Parts: sequence; C-alpha cells; structure tokens
Amino acid sequence: MDFEGALSAWQTQLGPEHVVTENDALEQKQTATFETSQQVLAIISPKNSAEVQAAIKIANQFNVPVYPISSGMNWGYGSAVPTCEQGVIMELSRLDTIENFSETLAHVTIGPGVTQQKLYDFLQQKDSNLWMDATGSSPDCSIIGNTVERGFGHTPYGDHFNHVCSMEVVLPSGEIINTGFSRFDNAHAASTYKWGVGAYVDGLFTQSNFGIVTKLTLWLMPKPQYFQAFYIMVEHDNQLEELIDTLQPFRLNRTVKSTVHIGNDFKVLSSITTFPWDKVGKNGKLTQDVVDEFAKLWDFGAWNVSGALYGTKQEVASARKQLKKAFNGKVKSIRFLDDTMLSLAIKLQKPYKWITGLDLPRLLKVMAPVHGLKKGIPTPDIIGSTFWRKKVDVPENPHPDRDKCGLIWCAPVAPTTGHHARAMVEIIKSNVDKYGFEPLISMSMINERSLDNVISIIYDREEPGQDEAAHQCHQQLMDDFNKQGYYPYRLGISGMEVTNKAEPQYLAFMKQLKSTLDPNNILAPGRYSSEK
Amino acid sequence: MDFEGALSAWQTQLGPEHVVTENDALEQKQTATFETSQQVLAIISPKNSAEVQAAIKIANQFNVPVYPISSGMNWGYGSAVPTCEQGVIMELSRLDTIENFSETLAHVTIGPGVTQQKLYDFLQQKDSNLWMDATGSSPDCSIIGNTVERGFGHTPYGDHFNHVCSMEVVLPSGEIINTGFSRFDNAHAASTYKWGVGAYVDGLFTQSNFGIVTKLTLWLMPKPQYFQAFYIMVEHDNQLEELIDTLQPFRLNRTVKSTVHIGNDFKVLSSITTFPWDKVGKNGKLTQDVVDEFAKLWDFGAWNVSGALYGTKQEVASARKQLKKAFNGKVKSIRFLDDTMLSLAIKLQKPYKWITGLDLPRLLKVMAPVHGLKKGIPTPDIIGSTFWRKKVDVPENPHPDRDKCGLIWCAPVAPTTGHHARAMVEIIKSNVDKYGFEPLISMSMINERSLDNVISIIYDREEPGQDEAAHQCHQQLMDDFNKQGYYPYRLGISGMEVTNKAEPQYLAFMKQLKSTLDPNNILAPGRYSSEK
Repeated sequence: MDFEGALSAWQTQLGPEHVVTENDALEQKQTATFETSQQVLAIISPKNSAEVQAAIKIANQFNVPVYPISSGMNWGYGSAVPTCEQGVIMELSRLDTIENFSETLAHVTIGPGVTQQKLYDFLQQKDSNLWMDATGSSPDCSIIGNTVERGFGHTPYGDHFNHVCSMEVVLPSGEIINTGFSRFDNAHAASTYKWGVGAYVDGLFTQSNFGIVTKLTLWLMPKPQYFQAFYIMVEHDNQLEELIDTLQPFRLNRTVKSTVHIGNDFKVLSSITTFPWDKVGKNGKLTQDVVDEFAKLWDFGAWNVSGALYGTKQEVASARKQLKKAFNGKVKSIRFLDDTMLSLAIKLQKPYKWITGLDLPRLLKVMAPVHGLKKGIPTPDIIGSTFWRKKVDVPENPHPDRDKCGLIWCAPVAPTTGHHARAMVEIIKSNVDKYGFEPLISMSMINERSLDNVISIIYDREEPGQDEAAHQCHQQLMDDFNKQGYYPYRLGISGMEVTNKAEPQYLAFMKQLKSTLDPNNILAPGRYSSEK
Repeated sequence: MDFEGALSAWQTQLGPEHVVTENDALEQKQTATFETSQQVLAIISPKNSAEVQAAIKIANQFNVPVYPISSGMNWGYGSAVPTCEQGVIMELSRLDTIENFSETLAHVTIGPGVTQQKLYDFLQQKDSNLWMDATGSSPDCSIIGNTVERGFGHTPYGDHFNHVCSMEVVLPSGEIINTGFSRFDNAHAASTYKWGVGAYVDGLFTQSNFGIVTKLTLWLMPKPQYFQAFYIMVEHDNQLEELIDTLQPFRLNRTVKSTVHIGNDFKVLSSITTFPWDKVGKNGKLTQDVVDEFAKLWDFGAWNVSGALYGTKQEVASARKQLKKAFNGKVKSIRFLDDTMLSLAIKLQKPYKWITGLDLPRLLKVMAPVHGLKKGIPTPDIIGSTFWRKKVDVPENPHPDRDKCGLIWCAPVAPTTGHHARAMVEIIKSNVDKYGFEPLISMSMINERSLDNVISIIYDREEPGQDEAAHQCHQQLMDDFNKQGYYPYRLGISGMEVTNKAEPQYLAFMKQLKSTLDPNNILAPGRYSSEK
C-alpha cells in the first residue's frame, strides 16, 4: 500500500478540499453505534461518476483499499466504518443528481447522494402523484445506500431492490457499466424493464464489494385512491402464533400489499419513551411488570401489529372486512386509521385523555410518523428510539454515532409461520437478558412468505462494559440463530463472517467473482465476505 | 476437441443408452422452426445433478462444447438447436423431480424435466389451492426452460423469473452451488426469501451460459376468491394509442395485476383459423379487406385486449367498474367473463349462432384455452397457430419442428405508451409486407411499465424460399427496432449478435465473467453472447 502516493494523486484529481485527513473528521467516520477498531486513513469525495472512476483507478495503482459510503448512516450495522482494518472512505454524497423522472411511467434516476428527504422534496415540488418508499431511519439517509443493502420500508414498494430498474456501476477496475437495457444506445425501455436482455447482473452489486453503484433507476408507486393504516393488538405473549398464522394468508394473497410490522411490548415502549429509570430498581432491570403497567397506561399489547391497506375505497373496504372477520374474537383490538381520523385524533388528544385516562399524545407521537412512513414520508422521529438507554433527552438533531447511542441490529429471516416466530422469540429471550438487555423485537412480514425478525440491542455506549456486553450478545444471538437455521437478511461490519457458513463451493464461486473483478482486492475488502 | 474421448467417458458415466448418436435423433434435435446450420454431435441425458456435474467435467476434460436443453421446445427462438456450430446436447428431461412443496407458504422445487402439465397435475393431485403460471406453449414445455429464458405467462405470477426463490446450479467447472439462503445448512427461509444474504446471483443464470440450473424453487399463487377475464375491442387501427394510454394507469397501479395481451386483427385471425387460402388471390396476399370480413363474422376488432381481474368479488367489482368507466365511449366493446359465463356460452353456442349469426364456436375455440391460461392451466390448443400458413389441418399432436412449421419470434420491449406502441407497429408494417408475411402482432403489458411486442413471423418451411425470406425479415425487423431504440426481452439462436450492440465496457465485463467461470468455453458457447 502506497498511501502517500495515492493521497497525492487523489488531491490532484479531486481537488485537495475533497481529500480529508484531519483527525476529527476521520474519528467521526470511524465511530459507529458499537465498538469498532477499524481505522479510516482518509476521506475522499468525488463529485461524479468520472471522478469515482478516476479515484478507484488511483486506488488500484497505489494498492490502497477504498470503502464507499453514501450517507454513512448505516446505523446498527456499522455506520460509515469500513470492514477492513485500514481503509480510505469514499464518500458519495456529492453525487446527488435526480434525473430521468417520469410521472406517467413512475420512475426516477438518482445518485448515491440523494437522501430520502431530497427525493421526497423533489416529488412534492413536482406536485407528483407518485410515492417513494421510505425507511424509519433519518430523512438524511441515502436511498441508494439503503437499497444496495437491500433495506426495506413500509409501502407496497417496500422491498427496495425489487423496485430497481438498472444501475450505473463503477467496477473495481474503474470501468463504468450500465446494466439492463441501459447498456444499449437510446434504449427506450431502460427505465421500465429491469431484466434487460442476457444475464441479469444488478443483484451482484447489492450486499457485495463487486462495484460502486453511482446511479440507480428507481420505480415509484402511484398514489392510491385511498389509504388506511391498521393496528392489531393482542394482550398476551402466547397469542403470537395465532396472530402470525392469521395474518399470513392475507400477506400471501396480497390483500395486505405492504410490509407488516409486529412489535413486542418492550419494543413499543422503547419507541414511545426512553428507559424508565425512575421505575426501575437498582439492578437496572426492566421487569415485565413495569412494562405491563405502561402497556395499560398507553394501551399497547404483548404484540402489536401495524400495517396498511391501499387501493380504491371499495378495495380497502373489502380488505378491512376480511381482516376484521379473521381476527374477530382473537385479538384485543383491531383498529383502522385513515388520514382524516388521524388529524381528528391529533385535535382531540387533550379531551380524549381527560375522558379515558389514556395518554393519546404518547401514542400519537409514535403513530403519526409511522402513519406517514406507510405513505413513503420520511421522518426524523423514529431514530430517537436509539436513545432508549441514554440518560438524556433526545437532542434536536439526534446523531446516534456522535451521541454515543449503542445500537446493534440482528435480523434473521424465517418463513412466515407462528411456529418459526415463536422459535425466534425463544432464542432472543434466552439470550438478551443474560447480557442485561431488553428483548426489543420487531418482526416484519417483508414479503409474501417471510418474516424478518429485527432485534435491536440498544444500550448506552457511555456505560462501561456495555460495548463488550452488546458485542457478545450479538455474537451469541447470531450463532444461535444460525445453528437453528435462521440466517440474516443483512449483515453488520462485525458480523460478516456469517457468509463463511455457506457451502464451500459457493464461497469458492464468490471468491472467483471477486478476484476476477477486483484482483488487487481494493474495493471494500471484507464486505459481505471474510476475505479482508 | 476430443469428441470420441468424451463420448466414451459419457457412455461409461451415464450408461450407453443415455448417450445417443443415431442420425435420426440428432437430425430431430438440429431442426428448429426456421433454417439452421448448427450440427448436433450427440445427445447426452444425465439423470440427476451429480450426473450433470460428472458430464460437464468430462466436457471440460475433452474440450467438447455442451448445450443444455430442458424440453427443447424453445419454438420460434431455436427449439433445441445449439448456438454453437457443433455441439453436444445435454437433455435434462430426466431431472423431473417435484419436491419441497408447501401449500401454506406456496412454494415448490422442480427440476428442468418438470413440464407445465406435470406441475399442473401435481397440484391437482394435491387438491391444492395454489395456481402455477403457464405459457401458451405446449403443456410438455419445461418450466425451468421457460423461466431461465425469462418467459412470461398470464397470471399475476406471469413474470416467471420474478417468482423464483433460489436455484441449484452446476457451474461450467462442474461444481454445484445453491443460491440464496439455500447455500446454508438447514436454512428455513431458503424457499421464502429470494435475496438471501450477500450478492444476489440468481440473475446470472438466466439468459446466459454461466451455469446449468438443475433445480429451481418457484413461488405459487394462492387461488383468488374470484376471477374474471376481460376483453376489450376497438374497431379501428388508429384507436391503438388511446387504448394503450387508457389501460396503462390500471396496469401501473395494479388494478390489473397480470399481463395484458393486445392482439391485432391478423393475430386474432391466425389464432382462430389457418390461412384462408380459398379467399386469397393468386399472389397469396391476405388483404386488409379479407381480414375485415372475418373480423365482422367472428366479432373481433383492429386491436383486441385480453386480460383478467383477480381478488375478492368486491375487489373485482371495483376494478371492473373502473375499467368500464375509463373505456366508456372509447371502444367498440368491453366484456367480462367469469367461469360460469364461459360454461354457459359453451352450452349456448349453437342457439347463439342461430340468433345472432356470429360464429361463437370459432371464438370459443380461442377463448376457452386463453381463459384457462389466465388461471395457470396449460393448454395444447394455442401452439396450433404455428400452422397458420400450412396447407394441412393442425394434426393431433402438433410439433412445429417436425411438422415444418415456420416460426420466428421477434420481441422488442418499449415503455407502455401509445406513442411507442404506434412506433413499433410502423416498423413492423413497413417490413413484413415486403417479405410477404402478415403483421401478426401481440403486445403484452408484461410488467407495470413495459410493453413487449411479440411479432410472429409464421410461414411454411415447405414452401421454397420462405426460410430465407423469414430470416431476412427477422434480421431487418431486429435492425430497425434496435436503431430506433427498441431492444428485445429475449433472443433466438440466430439473433444473439444483438448482445454485441452494448457498450464495450459491458461486453468486456460479460467476457470477464464468462472466462473466469468457463475458461474452456464449453458451456453453450454463443448463448446470449457473440463468443462462439
């Protein structure tokens, strides 16, 4: 590695102001929401694909590993921190063009610097009838960053990668390719037909280190005539299996067209408030009794479903009727909420509390942003839950890395059955308590057949010993999940070794692809691979 | 190439009866529905993945190109004929297991020997509430064969590759890999979550020569509560643009969840009857006037839409109402047909003809199998239309290759707009007539945003000069389409050079993948590539 040589070449190529080596900046980038040891040598910020291309050629020439990030907000999975022990971060936030927008055909092409908020504002400005999909992470998150990690959101377009139609990719060699039909001159269907002709390669550039996605065409969702969120609640933990099995056929047959999120009581509590230090004994353990008290006060259950219906009024009515019938007598409550009802609730929250004793404001604090997410509206309000174990209020502009919030996510996937849901809950409960954490569980029906169990290990990085406990807890959870046949949909930088558990032939195949595309192993070594 | 050495090794490995070199058999396999010059040296038939693996290792050892086929019924695109000048066919029809079926989670794993009919029968036998998707090709077609060619069908699961969840692949090296989560031990979600973790590679094994798909897990569709086909007809050619533009938003917002097929008058006529030799003058030219006469007699229009609605009765009613309203006053007719109405029509066809003069039996002959296809029921009745230009009746068991039917397909894709539909029609009309063929046009709204224009060049291979004219017509069409920015979703063996029109960097990337995976270029040389 000739780091000095590379640095000087990058300075010439990108301009010295876009090659940062100041300690503060490096320190910031090598800080995640959990303990890391990786060292960031420099941050380079190309302004367009051609500069990305030039920068990666320099990396090859001087044999310096480069780790591309978009917004660097991959919180819970490693933020901006590289997978390799020493590396240069290539920040892509300056590639923020929005182009190739079609209201009729519902597509748009974005760069990695385009944030959720930026695309949302763009659509608003166009007075568009199209919706984007958003995640609950910061409005300042990069859409490409999330998409190439195969993240998911809340609308019928929530499986982000499934709604991608062609990419511009800078290969590790520095060559630029366009995928799908966009590799042909003037191909009209480049943004409307994703398979193109010949091998379909877009998937190679998700969860990998095979290329840098510098542009991505995204399909947008036509706004439905009518929208209604639904909330289902069961009182007792042992109702989980029935809850899942009753929902499953509706998700399978697309009566419910979008991701359904199912949170346990601890998870809902952590979304509404920070840790109730005052109610908790000296050992700092939050007991089920205390949680149950809050559940009564704020009206949530042992398991809480949130989903939405989209379509014409008649279609939504049909879906609503079916859900009501299926859950009749099986749950504590099933509620439907449209935009009008939500506005009304916000207006009436004070008298409501006065009459019922229920603290509607607390619930609305969670429900309003979640309601918006189901319509693809980004929100800054969810990320506050990373402050769960902090002893301060959530600041104005929360930044989990800077604010020393501890967060590690673990996200195993299972078939959507009550049986598997229970098996996963057992694994969680038998582990997190041991390490002193709460079982913060959210299960998402991410597609018609699968349940993604997102476990949040949330802690305070300023508490001594917590980093280590969280790390151990995460490792143990991952091991136990894998042993029992549950593998994650996505990996954090400290969990990449899961990829090694694959059959050896597959590992050899991946290695073969990597070594032909990146013989010097300079692009994000160790990302979704154990070869650092 | 040491062909004799390979032959003897294959005989030992597979048993001599599964290594065929008889002239008749070879002749059959090197016969397509158009003229070809490629030579089949032998046909080898492994019985399982291990034998495929062994056979491909032998191919490498002796440097003999192998061309895998499933059922070999890739009619209109080259049937079983290899892309390389000389090659050994590997027939996969013995790999016909059906396993890993789940009624609840709606998936099944099949081998390349599983035909449409076989899976259909399997589901019937299980008394399953799940539907497969079928194409209009023979019930004896392989499902994997069609899926890896990214074929499409008629139900909401009509984009076949989009409903694939993991594959078993024999690489050109002979190594076997399992994709998605199925590469991990005991992964419960292997058949329910298609992306797995790490790079998504399944797309590499569609429309390529990078591997042999020996197993594939397929998602099945839960039978909807209610189903209704719809038929829309416009009288005049110049109504095409409005027709497409009126339909487009319904396909985009998934009110219409499945492929919509739009056939012109010539296409519909060719589906109902064979060429009306008696009505056509000496020059053999079928004029618009004659077609118009038939259109009146059998009640079809210049453009004819066929699609379907799926859901609860209430959902279908909502969709029906919207379509009716949108097309009100714009079309000659819009008709809805459910199972009950179709049965009734079949019963009443005679009195109907007597009263109205319309020949319902002729229409029903087309409508009944198409109705079934919309429910995933394979049919032997559509393939008969390849006999359009023959001077004999369609035989009992039609086989287009053997029966010397001429058929070449050309299938360019465009965004779903009336403007593009018209532009494509212009290209077709200005070409086919010159070569003496009819414009047999079917436009399919294959996804929410794209129109695939399938042009059938149908002729009689026993007529001198027709093979050549058809070939030239196809080349000219393809050239004109490409020049104007329309590229095909799929290629026949005589059209693979289209891949060459891509940007050079992309071609280099493909070559790099191929040469690392198949250094001896023994797997299907020239398939979706110009490197033979």
